Amino acid sequence: MSTTTPRVVTVIGAGTIGLGWVTLFLAHGHRVRVNSTRPDVEPSVREAVRLLAPGLPGAHPDPAELLERLEVVPDLERAVDGADVVQENTPENLELKQELFARLGKAAAPHTLLLSSTSTLLPEALGARMADPSRVLVGHPFNPPHVVPLVEVVAAAHTDPAALQSTVDFYRGSGKVPIVLRKPIAAFVANRLQSALLQESIHLVREGVVTVEELDAVVTNSIGLRWATMGPFQSFHLGGGLGGLRKWLTTLGAGLQKGWEGLGRPVLDEDTIELLLAQADDAFGAHRYDELVARRDRLQRTVLEALRDAETS
Amino acid sequence: MSTTTPRVVTVIGAGTIGLGWVTLFLAHGHRVRVNSTRPDVEPSVREAVRLLAPGLPGAHPDPAELLERLEVVPDLERAVDGADVVQENTPENLELKQELFARLGKAAAPHTLLLSSTSTLLPEALGARMADPSRVLVGHPFNPPHVVPLVEVVAAAHTDPAALQSTVDFYRGSGKVPIVLRKPIAAFVANRLQSALLQESIHLVREGVVTVEELDAVVTNSIGLRWATMGPFQSFHLGGGLGGLRKWLTTLGAGLQKGWEGLGRPVLDEDTIELLLAQADDAFGAHRYDELVARRDRLQRTVLEALRDAETS
Repeated sequence: MSTTTPRVVTVIGAGTIGLGWVTLFLAHGHRVRVNSTRPDVEPSVREAVRLLAPGLPGAHPDPAELLERLEVVPDLERAVDGADVVQENTPENLELKQELFARLGKAAAPHTLLLSSTSTLLPEALGARMADPSRVLVGHPFNPPHVVPLVEVVAAAHTDPAALQSTVDFYRGSGKVPIVLRKPIAAFVANRLQSALLQESIHLVREGVVTVEELDAVVTNSIGLRWATMGPFQSFHLGGGLGGLRKWLTTLGAGLQKGWEGLGRPVLDEDTIELLLAQADDAFGAHRYDELVARRDRLQRTVLEALRDAETS
Repeated sequence: MSTTTPRVVTVIGAGTIGLGWVTLFLAHGHRVRVNSTRPDVEPSVREAVRLLAPGLPGAHPDPAELLERLEVVPDLERAVDGADVVQENTPENLELKQELFARLGKAAAPHTLLLSSTSTLLPEALGARMADPSRVLVGHPFNPPHVVPLVEVVAAAHTDPAALQSTVDFYRGSGKVPIVLRKPIAAFVANRLQSALLQESIHLVREGVVTVEELDAVVTNSIGLRWATMGPFQSFHLGGGLGGLRKWLTTLGAGLQKGWEGLGRPVLDEDTIELLLAQADDAFGAHRYDELVARRDRLQRTVLEALRDAETS
């Protein structure tokens, strides 16, 4: 399954994101060391790999075989000694992450890539207490990392171009689709887009146009389906008939801009929050959280596999 | 395949949307009359049904069998005489549509549902010149109607509740997922959400964070995949771990609102349009328009079929 050289990869943190990375890296042939402060880390990680491995899109690896390449290493310095890649998944606390990266900078070999799953912090900040932060990058996955292909890669002005290239190669070889941001921006790309759509979704529910459940049904039955197969620009290109994007932008651009001015600017006051929560409870409150998560991941894997089969058939 | 009583359905207009409706309605057992001003309408419609029928999700009807229930009726009054449902797909011109609906109101039997595919006009406006507009509704499909499940149903204050219910039943029985808007709003729901995401997409390209091609890849490999399987609210509920939507909205609501304030407000000036067009040309300019459309529809059908299989297995 691997298309890259097997590496020694240290995963720091054994929460949802960390465990997804562990499973993915193992499935792509890497040796994985897990470093975590959880007291029950060894049995937890082994159990998670057994649970998550069957969910890997397109792959049905034997969990027992994967677990042979897994090692739990509670000591941080020992965990990164000789590692090719470190992927850290600690809480979004700048102080703690800066401290962690300072230790990593001292403990890891000079070629080791130091990657962070952070969704909010930039590599400049992460590496601020390091003598040489040139191999610190953000590699922000979408949850769960073993299913959803995207990883947003963010470098800094001080990043070594070779480290950036190695990071991209490493992720691609591990089955991910890495997209390198050309400049840093708060919240990166996917979460900003998600936030823009959520803002209008909340506006429409607040205005009483649709309920939470109806809004979700609109999306899965139209734009969600479409955006699983092609992005918004290509969709837009094909949405207006012959003439495509050029026709849209040159003859209908004013209407597009006017539409933006009419979009909602909801306020998340107490009434809005209670309205959303009551409707969300009606929509999916009767389902257990872990069952909804399992369903999401199963359906996402289903879509990915179907699309890959269709593209290669 | 049909779960509804077969009806006589008159489709007015034989462009992309009209032809998609024709194929869908035929596949669900209805008798379909096509009314169009196109001179070549008879051979065009028959050719379109042959081309589109194999693309119907989950169905593989024999086009020859479908065509037995198709009739081209160039005279409008004759086309709607005895019809149970009219679905009109004429250009987005209020004057012309008002004139059309006035004629339909006189020509159609009192029980006939008068439905418009319009993406911009409200039923009040469409029926403004009719003596009795109580059975005029918007039934706005997503392109192409024979593949994408959503139809947004918009009623007016004067709409007969029985006509609304019949409309919903008719669409549901024809394989669609009808969502009734609880109040009218400009551009309806799906296109407003699409517009919100497109606004931020254009901002990110304009700012040089990603290219058109990279933006599209981010979406298909993350939020598009996700929103094909569940809507934004349920995604959000599952995105923050245990505690779900309540935790997000009550403890992180301020951050969410702050994120909205940082979203882009791009201007569609000439430089922006040229930048988008040049990058779009790099991304998909080498592909023929009709091939991209065919690929989109094939992949959308693939996703729908895979999800339906997964949900029923």
